[in-house]
Amino acid sequence: MFSSQDSQWMHRAIVLAEQGRFTTSPNPNVGAVIVKHEKCIGEGYHQQAGGPHAEVFALRQAGSQAQGATCYVTLEPCSHVGRTAPCAEALIKAGISRVVIAMQDPNPQVAGKGITLLKAAGIEVEVGLLGEQSRAINLGFLSRMEQQRPFVQLKLAASLDGRTALENGVSKWLTCAEARADVQLYRAQSCAILSTATTVLTDNARLNLRVEELSTAVSRLDNGQLRQPKKIILDRQQLLKGNEAVFADAANVIQCIPMLENGNKMPHNASQLRCQTTSDGRFDLAALLQQLATEQQVNRLWVEAGATLAGSLISQHLVDELIIYIAPKLLGHLAQPLAVLNNFTALEQVPTLVWQDMAMVGTDIRLTARFN
Amino acid sequence: MFSSQDSQWMHRAIVLAEQGRFTTSPNPNVGAVIVKHEKCIGEGYHQQAGGPHAEVFALRQAGSQAQGATCYVTLEPCSHVGRTAPCAEALIKAGISRVVIAMQDPNPQVAGKGITLLKAAGIEVEVGLLGEQSRAINLGFLSRMEQQRPFVQLKLAASLDGRTALENGVSKWLTCAEARADVQLYRAQSCAILSTATTVLTDNARLNLRVEELSTAVSRLDNGQLRQPKKIILDRQQLLKGNEAVFADAANVIQCIPMLENGNKMPHNASQLRCQTTSDGRFDLAALLQQLATEQQVNRLWVEAGATLAGSLISQHLVDELIIYIAPKLLGHLAQPLAVLNNFTALEQVPTLVWQDMAMVGTDIRLTARFN
Repeated sequence: MFSSQDSQWMHRAIVLAEQGRFTTSPNPNVGAVIVKHEKCIGEGYHQQAGGPHAEVFALRQAGSQAQGATCYVTLEPCSHVGRTAPCAEALIKAGISRVVIAMQDPNPQVAGKGITLLKAAGIEVEVGLLGEQSRAINLGFLSRMEQQRPFVQLKLAASLDGRTALENGVSKWLTCAEARADVQLYRAQSCAILSTATTVLTDNARLNLRVEELSTAVSRLDNGQLRQPKKIILDRQQLLKGNEAVFADAANVIQCIPMLENGNKMPHNASQLRCQTTSDGRFDLAALLQQLATEQQVNRLWVEAGATLAGSLISQHLVDELIIYIAPKLLGHLAQPLAVLNNFTALEQVPTLVWQDMAMVGTDIRLTARFN
Repeated sequence: MFSSQDSQWMHRAIVLAEQGRFTTSPNPNVGAVIVKHEKCIGEGYHQQAGGPHAEVFALRQAGSQAQGATCYVTLEPCSHVGRTAPCAEALIKAGISRVVIAMQDPNPQVAGKGITLLKAAGIEVEVGLLGEQSRAINLGFLSRMEQQRPFVQLKLAASLDGRTALENGVSKWLTCAEARADVQLYRAQSCAILSTATTVLTDNARLNLRVEELSTAVSRLDNGQLRQPKKIILDRQQLLKGNEAVFADAANVIQCIPMLENGNKMPHNASQLRCQTTSDGRFDLAALLQQLATEQQVNRLWVEAGATLAGSLISQHLVDELIIYIAPKLLGHLAQPLAVLNNFTALEQVPTLVWQDMAMVGTDIRLTARFN
């Protein structure tokens, strides 16, 4: 059904789509290429929510040549009027004769309606080319649409013997400067960072995106487009006073407090989110993630927290991907553990992952693994 | 001084030398290539202690053509009569006119005497070509000659959170079959395995080289040449009774007991080694390593033991290289630690390594690191 030419153009569309990975949220990353007589006559990618969609950029470039051309697009063209006009209609108006789509859009506002619209206009529509690759660049958006929770990446940093800090709490700096800069890249790709009041207070963590630490390739983006991720701080006991370093960016701070409690006064532009708790008084983490997806439109959630929250998320199967920086150091048996988990009695019970990637980052190693 | 042709031939000699890595101990790995008119007329490598040296194989192939030729050899030709006649003399007799040597032999029986002999015979001698690469294939032999202790490789296997077993001791099988087969390769390259009575008793470990688990490339060697490493078992309290699985290969078992104690009766072909202890009654590990090098001719020592011995060796700076298999599992904070170390109060105090290598081995990752 698809030729190798088709694959090549769709691959180009995916490469284009990826260029939006720091800026499109809560929208998905989408790329489009318009081809006529085996030549690209227009291409584009979605850059920022509220701005034109990928197809619009590509159609603008193609102009009147679009008549009779093929459009390759990594996600089903939209059919609804959102902040921009529907792309399916734009493709029809431009006279496009064939549309190749990597995957259907699971967004209930689209969900096949774009395809139906195109077909009804007599356009040849084919779906599924490089579908897996297209999924891979939208893990956050797809998780939010399909599971009503963010794609959750848990960041850990440990010694070779799996310790995050000395017994006395010292952990600065366990990992190297390059590893810490690498973390900035993940923060930049995430809609929100999840942490706890304890972490914020212990490290006086700012949890902000420090553009100056990003690699040149990324900071070459217009910095205005790079957004600060929201800082979601679990604060069951309301330990935060509002004067901590994290409040330097108060507009992006969301303090999570138990559903029925009165909130302390926070800096006027910080938010409070009332969250469900379980019978033991702890936050219901599954409910929280759903809340973040549905109320806060969080596609990708980057977790930077201690062994307790890490362990709870893992135990409740709420982590999709684990990213761990391993420093070539040994802290010993008295140092602090990576994750607080149940006391297992058989290896069949333990959380098991599959390696995705390994890389040197400065003098450390970064391992990436996904839960089954 | 050296041409790119020279480098190419020496590189060939090193590749040849490596072919002996499972069989030459306690001798070093040595390769030799004889070149005349830019063609190889003879090559060889040392295969087994007591057998011909590399130069002899190469000279046999070259025959009378050796007259006026250049010999590339990865280690200084020997000058002493050991189990074979001195190679320096053989090169002189064959009429070799130039000898290029990667590195001088630190063996006090040679240590420049081979070079002196060749020069005295009017042969042009050059030393130092690819010297680092030649060192790299003889880390064990060089450590024994230069530091009177083996090159010590510590093998560890842990979960992603640095745990070696569940709280209840269960560790079978934390790592995958491919990782365990990979361990066999290291055992095959080692002169001896160091372990403890506790480990032997807990796991009923055989600590033997299981040829059937080796990769095809290695098992294609004549199995008769692959030797069982010696099994050095620290047994301060004489817990071993002689009927444990490790004694299936009793001839290679060396039970280490404190210097002044009477030994239990062991199977008649197992050995006992009386070792120095420190004032607290523990084995003096530095003295033990020296004893293994000087009395037992151990070049490469492969340590498979628990967190206590691992920690002691690391703390006393007696480990050269750490090889750790990491399974993509999380065992939690109650599981058993990788290394028992001091309670550090600052990160500057902790043992620090430098990564050498990382590789996927089955579903696990193998990380290699050296101590500074």
